Amino acid sequence: MNERVKYTLNEDDIPYTWLNIAADFGEPAPILDPATGAPITRAELCRTIAEPLVDQELSTEPEFEIPGPVRDIYRQWRPTPLYRARRLEIALDTPARIYYKYEGVSPVGSLKPNSAVPQAYYNKQIGKTGLVTETGAGQWGSSIASAAAMFGLTAQVFMVGVSYRQKPYRRALMEAYGAVCNSSPSPLTAAGRAVLAEDPDHPGSLGIAKSEALEVAYANPDLGYTRGSSLNHVCAHQTVIGQEAMLQMELAEDYPDIVVGPCGGGSTLAGMCFPFLRDKLRRGRDIRLIAAEPVACPTLTRGRIAYDHSDAARLTPLSRMHTLGHKFVPPPVHAGGLRAHDISPLISRAVENGLMEAVAVRQHACFEAGVLFAREEGIVPAPESAHAVRAAIDEALRCREQGQSKAILIALSGHGHFDLAAYEKFQAGLLPDDEPSDEDLELGLSSIPDLARA
Amino acid sequence: MNERVKYTLNEDDIPYTWLNIAADFGEPAPILDPATGAPITRAELCRTIAEPLVDQELSTEPEFEIPGPVRDIYRQWRPTPLYRARRLEIALDTPARIYYKYEGVSPVGSLKPNSAVPQAYYNKQIGKTGLVTETGAGQWGSSIASAAAMFGLTAQVFMVGVSYRQKPYRRALMEAYGAVCNSSPSPLTAAGRAVLAEDPDHPGSLGIAKSEALEVAYANPDLGYTRGSSLNHVCAHQTVIGQEAMLQMELAEDYPDIVVGPCGGGSTLAGMCFPFLRDKLRRGRDIRLIAAEPVACPTLTRGRIAYDHSDAARLTPLSRMHTLGHKFVPPPVHAGGLRAHDISPLISRAVENGLMEAVAVRQHACFEAGVLFAREEGIVPAPESAHAVRAAIDEALRCREQGQSKAILIALSGHGHFDLAAYEKFQAGLLPDDEPSDEDLELGLSSIPDLARA
Repeated sequence: MNERVKYTLNEDDIPYTWLNIAADFGEPAPILDPATGAPITRAELCRTIAEPLVDQELSTEPEFEIPGPVRDIYRQWRPTPLYRARRLEIALDTPARIYYKYEGVSPVGSLKPNSAVPQAYYNKQIGKTGLVTETGAGQWGSSIASAAAMFGLTAQVFMVGVSYRQKPYRRALMEAYGAVCNSSPSPLTAAGRAVLAEDPDHPGSLGIAKSEALEVAYANPDLGYTRGSSLNHVCAHQTVIGQEAMLQMELAEDYPDIVVGPCGGGSTLAGMCFPFLRDKLRRGRDIRLIAAEPVACPTLTRGRIAYDHSDAARLTPLSRMHTLGHKFVPPPVHAGGLRAHDISPLISRAVENGLMEAVAVRQHACFEAGVLFAREEGIVPAPESAHAVRAAIDEALRCREQGQSKAILIALSGHGHFDLAAYEKFQAGLLPDDEPSDEDLELGLSSIPDLARA
Repeated sequence: MNERVKYTLNEDDIPYTWLNIAADFGEPAPILDPATGAPITRAELCRTIAEPLVDQELSTEPEFEIPGPVRDIYRQWRPTPLYRARRLEIALDTPARIYYKYEGVSPVGSLKPNSAVPQAYYNKQIGKTGLVTETGAGQWGSSIASAAAMFGLTAQVFMVGVSYRQKPYRRALMEAYGAVCNSSPSPLTAAGRAVLAEDPDHPGSLGIAKSEALEVAYANPDLGYTRGSSLNHVCAHQTVIGQEAMLQMELAEDYPDIVVGPCGGGSTLAGMCFPFLRDKLRRGRDIRLIAAEPVACPTLTRGRIAYDHSDAARLTPLSRMHTLGHKFVPPPVHAGGLRAHDISPLISRAVENGLMEAVAVRQHACFEAGVLFAREEGIVPAPESAHAVRAAIDEALRCREQGQSKAILIALSGHGHFDLAAYEKFQAGLLPDDEPSDEDLELGLSSIPDLARA
């Protein structure tokens, strides 16, 4: 245990640019207007999203400069540490070298501020007075609440109803930062009212919450709509993670054979993997990039590549990506951040082109991995992060079987201090381990719009 | 905002020794045996506490070497960051320079592992197979649970009943680490059974939980009893905080005029202040050291200096210190870590000798400060830490009134992610702001043993 376990960078090593992997992918598939089916105009996107963010969304420039005031705020918790998981390696009796990059040291305990801070900054810059967004388990919502407070903006968050009720402390965190948090579906929007009319006890979904937030943004030009994952600019903001990790692996005099991240909307995975993917594309590095998604919401492993909406009320533009259909409702697994029917089009394209792999892991297996990780490394992973831990442990056990010493790098997206009810249920044997039925999947897939070009 | 806000150290800057302020205080008052009233023997202390820790407890050496394996584990989260609170300064419109040292980046989110790790290490070293301890709000219990797991020890935690029920997630955290957590008073001990016989619904107290843990330790020589605050060795372990902070203030080319810490048992305060206190004593530095305690539990501001027990069942030795009496029961404020009737004898002595000051702050004022701090600095402070934030803000406002630019350093002991129910109540106007009645105080003070030597 006397060997080095932590690789620390200086403030000067915080990246000065975000990496835009769209530059490496050739001509992107156009985004389609939900009303016309034709490619969407820049002006239409700017109706809800701040113009500098739309510019990034549509850009194929290789990188974007990080504004000074954003980088100044990053300095509060960045660079984040990268660790060698020596005790976990010993517990697994594996010859693998396991590393993890830990984003739980941010003030809200997850990677989300990496994108919330610049989104608040750009909205402030163009004169918006507030932000509106949706959140599932609340990691994104609390990050937007905090970033809005820093820039003197209001924040309104539509939180998936079932999480709103199950996780009152996430809501309390948003409120401590001064945000208004509404349970979705809410009576505040036409989209919410339509759902409530059919089912007053509807548990909500991320798709419905997106529809509500977008509706508010369309109705209030002073408010900027923000998104916590999936979109190209969000993936770009998160690449500070992978860029730092590359420097830290150099300090460790090592290079990952395998990089694994949890995959819901895809921004954690993109943030960690895209810098390595560029290395792979430009320098021919031999590296496996693995998306760990829940069996309960198997977007990459059982979805289709097609044009689809990101929201239930079909207000969002149509993007070409892996999708389970915008009407797909996954079983209520506790990794709320991974319960998305759709995924980042950039991740989707990387998988389609054979540049990334995907594995689906079960909820029980993830919590089992989370408990082992907590006991050996001291950090209780968020359920989302536990998906990556599980996939990494499986690779490490394969190394043991095959007598190979590979370097495995985990994107540990956050701590699980808000998710202990789920750990408690798991340890008490009360956590379900559901997967969607063939009927549920078929119902979801049948909601994918029928477009010739998809 | 382009000025530096974070002062980062390297791993080499993690201290190699713990500082023992007892060396600077001259002959210590003896600890008395609860059975005989005579000075306690080393052998008696060793019946429950690991011998190397007893050696530290009784030592007047100026420092103790930090064992290599302990320092290796410290490296996971140490050195912790020290920040300049620029946004808070601007919000307060104060000429004061406010700094905070943030211990919330540890895996459990507080400073407690600084002592839990060495206590687990020494117990393992002398052949104990497990640890037993008490915990109030659960910060110490979860730190012991994690440290025990790292060293392959069992952990049994007696958690104050009211917190056990109010904070199920702290308990779930301990269980995730593999510890057994019992609600106190419990039917597992004579001390617990005696309390339950009088009142089956007794909410418990830290004093009762201590009695239960000690009883288990006396009955099981294989188990080591550990304490999360107050004792000299615990204060020493926490001095890694102040030692690092001194280096970081040098990086900031500044030196604090005022250092403020929350004060319950006293280990946060001691950990931050004792290195500065030594500087004050040995180099004549002009510095004010302030203990911020709750009005609800005013040990330093309204207690007496006397010999008293630390526990309700009077199993602990008698120490000379400020005390409200071992039968004092404070109102149920949410800073569970500050609800101790007694205090570190070393802190007590520093206050008695005029080397430290104490202020008592109200619960509402603390949460108000916590909310302001969260919005400006992004970090939601634990309620304990919010006491120090409150006292620091009051000093900063005084600087504004007086047109003075003082440097104020806050010991921010942990994040409030487990305490959001309290923030929620505060924001909803439902948090009480109780102080003890004169009768409650008199009842407590009258339980102080009548010893001629006190």
